[in-house]
Amino acid sequence: MFEARLTQADVWKKVIDAIKDLVQEATLDCTENGISLQAMDNAHVSLVSLLLRSDGFETYRCDRNLSLGLNITSASKILRCASGNDAITLKAGDKADTLTFVFESKYRSSEFEIKLMDLDVDHLGIPDTDYKCIIRMPSAQLQRICRDLSQIGDSVVISVAKDGVSFSSNGDLGTGNVKLCQSANADKPEESVSIEMHEPVCMTYSLHYFNIFTKAAPLSSQVVLSLTENVPAVVEFEIEDLGYIRYYLAPKIEDDAD
Amino acid sequence: MFEARLTQADVWKKVIDAIKDLVQEATLDCTENGISLQAMDNAHVSLVSLLLRSDGFETYRCDRNLSLGLNITSASKILRCASGNDAITLKAGDKADTLTFVFESKYRSSEFEIKLMDLDVDHLGIPDTDYKCIIRMPSAQLQRICRDLSQIGDSVVISVAKDGVSFSSNGDLGTGNVKLCQSANADKPEESVSIEMHEPVCMTYSLHYFNIFTKAAPLSSQVVLSLTENVPAVVEFEIEDLGYIRYYLAPKIEDDAD
Amino acid sequence: MFEARLTQADVWKKVIDAIKDLVQEATLDCTENGISLQAMDNAHVSLVSLLLRSDGFETYRCDRNLSLGLNITSASKILRCASGNDAITLKAGDKADTLTFVFESKYRSSEFEIKLMDLDVDHLGIPDTDYKCIIRMPSAQLQRICRDLSQIGDSVVISVAKDGVSFSSNGDLGTGNVKLCQSANADKPEESVSIEMHEPVCMTYSLHYFNIFTKAAPLSSQVVLSLTENVPAVVEFEIEDLGYIRYYLAPKIEDDAD
Repeated sequence: MFEARLTQADVWKKVIDAIKDLVQEATLDCTENGISLQAMDNAHVSLVSLLLRSDGFETYRCDRNLSLGLNITSASKILRCASGNDAITLKAGDKADTLTFVFESKYRSSEFEIKLMDLDVDHLGIPDTDYKCIIRMPSAQLQRICRDLSQIGDSVVISVAKDGVSFSSNGDLGTGNVKLCQSANADKPEESVSIEMHEPVCMTYSLHYFNIFTKAAPLSSQVVLSLTENVPAVVEFEIEDLGYIRYYLAPKIEDDAD
Repeated sequence: MFEARLTQADVWKKVIDAIKDLVQEATLDCTENGISLQAMDNAHVSLVSLLLRSDGFETYRCDRNLSLGLNITSASKILRCASGNDAITLKAGDKADTLTFVFESKYRSSEFEIKLMDLDVDHLGIPDTDYKCIIRMPSAQLQRICRDLSQIGDSVVISVAKDGVSFSSNGDLGTGNVKLCQSANADKPEESVSIEMHEPVCMTYSLHYFNIFTKAAPLSSQVVLSLTENVPAVVEFEIEDLGYIRYYLAPKIEDDAD
Repeated sequence: MFEARLTQADVWKKVIDAIKDLVQEATLDCTENGISLQAMDNAHVSLVSLLLRSDGFETYRCDRNLSLGLNITSASKILRCASGNDAITLKAGDKADTLTFVFESKYRSSEFEIKLMDLDVDHLGIPDTDYKCIIRMPSAQLQRICRDLSQIGDSVVISVAKDGVSFSSNGDLGTGNVKLCQSANADKPEESVSIEMHEPVCMTYSLHYFNIFTKAAPLSSQVVLSLTENVPAVVEFEIEDLGYIRYYLAPKIEDDAD
């Protein structure tokens, strides 16, 4: 038996929103340690990795390991039926072919049961990397920058120096360049920009994917970008008390750049 | 001569919004007692019945009975030209082929004249029924439940027991079930759920129509569902000080259910 | 060298929004006195004229006269990348084939460079006219009236008398007529309606164009309508401390009216 309860349905709503434009089907791996999900997008260009630790749930029970093949689009429809403040419980039997979502508020309780799918699971090993640059910045800022630069072009060049990071793009109508300075904001730490640089990095990435990744911005006020030349970038959003969602995206090589 | 004035155009805006997705043409019957409208939807599956009593208007005058054949879509366009806080007067002559809407605010007065139509009027007798279950609940709650279950299926099974009412639906992606408990909320009576049950009822209805009916939710914080097996359900929204809007919908029989 | 700085990017955003539905390409004429733009819409029916005086800018420098051929659609895209509170600087070299927009906020600075175009410039002399009627009214009010009357017809008849002005329209579904009374509102002068009338005027105009002109409403709480029979109407929005945007539109002659 598997049962995991959170007091705020909002978390699951945001998690699924952060995944659904990237993958339509994925497996929730449930163990006594927590729930994880790893999936490549349809084009096999990027990877999303989710971890929700069992100790972050209000109650959590997982008697044996389960792999729940989820249609993400259906899960998203079901979660639209929850209010953000509902308590939410996910439940499945040990030989589950359905997953049950229970939403509870003061006077209302809802149960939605969703059919599961048989999905090929293939776990990708993600090699540990010592990234050359680690940038912490407001996630809404990254979302805004990527959206803005999409007005200009299809790619973003991220260029990191000690004192700042710049995002630039070019296209038919001209060029755009946004610079953020390192800045500590003691009163509002969520607005800080911090740069940890071992070597400068300047790489090009697809804005299409960055725009999808930043749909996770509602999960966390800060985002961490980990960059190294010619190695996939990591875009990480912490999920408070529970875990994280991470996206991996290989840089564009020169010939790809548009 | 017919003339009926309200201080809040909002009421008429909401009334027409509550009708326009169901019927495109209908007759306003004006008598000294008030204004009524009765119409079946285009598919002849449901019936809407509106009553606005003369004594609820700020001023009301109706010298002789009038049947005003109204294009509801046009009336809706005209009412979009009123601000919610405008005073609103409906006027027609005794041999009216137009209906005039007057909207008044401090510095602005508008007059819109709409052409009337010759419509076949056929009044349906609605038999008095002693309903087995009468449910009073927040109208926004009903609207939300019907919208949510539309994610799942085309029909809703409403099942009433002494202590609660459940709404359920099923479809390709799975099943959904929302339960409301009887609850009195003395501080916020508009959030109460009350169930008056003489016999349990469990019937299936089209969600398509329930979704249209609940467009009347802005008219009233509470809705009354009156149910009896194999008899049309009544969905009633009271219009404060004025009257009501009621919708009638026959249950689906087994073969219909999808 | 040309450089013009404002503390609020909002002004440029609103100015371009007020132009972009009328013309897709236009020339910014920059001189030491300020920036001006004059363009006819694609159908050559109306004219827009913009003036931003140099002394309204925070800093302004224009070493020699420049004509910057701007793709308005591209400029609008670029300006969407600014926050309303960003400081904004427009920059161009003396032999400019690009125009640079710099947006600055506390921790972020962005530079967007847009390619310029060679446009035929032909300045239209606008004859001075002593208008018979000058109406000052809330711009949001004019916007609302034009939008409302578009529900009814394609044209608006504006009819001015000493004590009020009426806007009317007719079409298939009926007629609409909105009357505004002259009114001084000492507490909220932006809500006043004032009429200066030397001769009554009653002319018909295209609602399509009035709906475009009133996109400038966010620039100014009041709009000034200057009308004379058989002479183009002027619809003017003052831009505080900087200048104005004016639209000219010839009245419809009888055969045109629909």
